Amino acid sequence: MDQLKLYVANKNYSSWSMRPWLAMKAAGIPFTDELIPFDYEHGNPTIKAISETGMVPLLVHGDFKLWESLAIIEYVAELFPDAPVWPSARQDRALARAYSLEMISGFRGIRNACPMNLRRPRKAMPITDSMRADIVRIEKIWHESVARSGGPFLFGAFSAVDAMFAPVVNRFDAYMLTEHPESLKYMAAMKAHPAWIAWAGDAAKETWIVAEDEA
Amino acid sequence: MDQLKLYVANKNYSSWSMRPWLAMKAAGIPFTDELIPFDYEHGNPTIKAISETGMVPLLVHGDFKLWESLAIIEYVAELFPDAPVWPSARQDRALARAYSLEMISGFRGIRNACPMNLRRPRKAMPITDSMRADIVRIEKIWHESVARSGGPFLFGAFSAVDAMFAPVVNRFDAYMLTEHPESLKYMAAMKAHPAWIAWAGDAAKETWIVAEDEA
Repeated sequence: MDQLKLYVANKNYSSWSMRPWLAMKAAGIPFTDELIPFDYEHGNPTIKAISETGMVPLLVHGDFKLWESLAIIEYVAELFPDAPVWPSARQDRALARAYSLEMISGFRGIRNACPMNLRRPRKAMPITDSMRADIVRIEKIWHESVARSGGPFLFGAFSAVDAMFAPVVNRFDAYMLTEHPESLKYMAAMKAHPAWIAWAGDAAKETWIVAEDEA
Repeated sequence: MDQLKLYVANKNYSSWSMRPWLAMKAAGIPFTDELIPFDYEHGNPTIKAISETGMVPLLVHGDFKLWESLAIIEYVAELFPDAPVWPSARQDRALARAYSLEMISGFRGIRNACPMNLRRPRKAMPITDSMRADIVRIEKIWHESVARSGGPFLFGAFSAVDAMFAPVVNRFDAYMLTEHPESLKYMAAMKAHPAWIAWAGDAAKETWIVAEDEA
């Protein structure tokens, strides 16, 4: 089989790159990655040259190119049916997808106000009503899921839905959006996962500064 | 197996209800539906009473409740693996998911300006820059997919990705957003599909008016 290659952007800032990268790494999917730094000033020409949507992440598999984080995750789950990409029970898997889709279509309050920034020193910011609504919903998902599964991740072992929430863990942490002990416990489990440690370690070495993501 | 039941809102207006309903109907999945009319004035209390996100569509299967259109579609595709929910070739299926996810996360230019309204008399509206960008991308997806598959739908036979674009077909039609012959051909195929005809027939009989969706 052709090697899988995942194009990503700055590991410090690119929340959408982080999601499939963590999901694949945690599930033991073999792949290489290539980083194309953001270049907003010039309209990201290097990314646009390889990606028809002008966006990363982008998975390349032989001649085939695939975009959209969740489509990439489903594709590798099909290619490697024995890899623990999704929870193994059908209804858990369905809920994991529903939560992942809430992440994709929503939570714009915190996504817009609090850019992912893994190097950001921990510092609180004012919480608006739309941020508050997002925080309430996200914590409900986290607490109910961990209570049901027993944790430490949403459906027990780490799965793709945890990868979808990983950038939110950084936001909750860096912008100090919660003090709830159950949330802090989930966030600590995430930050202790080997896939997170590997990605965040790479981010820590980057020297690019993206001004609009320094909130 | 327990019967599947899909809660939907007004068939005339609820684009997100239409998507899984069409996908399931076209694939021959057995299910019943129940319609809860929008009641924005009172905050949709009847919908909130059954749905933890306060939103439809909602699939009920025994004691299990599932929301998010694409999660519902994936769940029924797993329950009925022989039903033609997705295209049968793996890379087609992956692309179908990527396009579906572009629909879920994007195209807010036309989604905001042009509410789905199946009963709306055809009448043009001014096309803003953000609407134009959406139209260009959507037509690129339609034309390239039909050229690759031979049509009449994006991957040959009707599949879930066509269901995801169905409300956009209504928008292109009702607000006269295109005159491109390849687009008109795809839209005509959609409007001739038995699942569309069944849904739109129900919508035509509804008498509720949702003021904010009358653009």
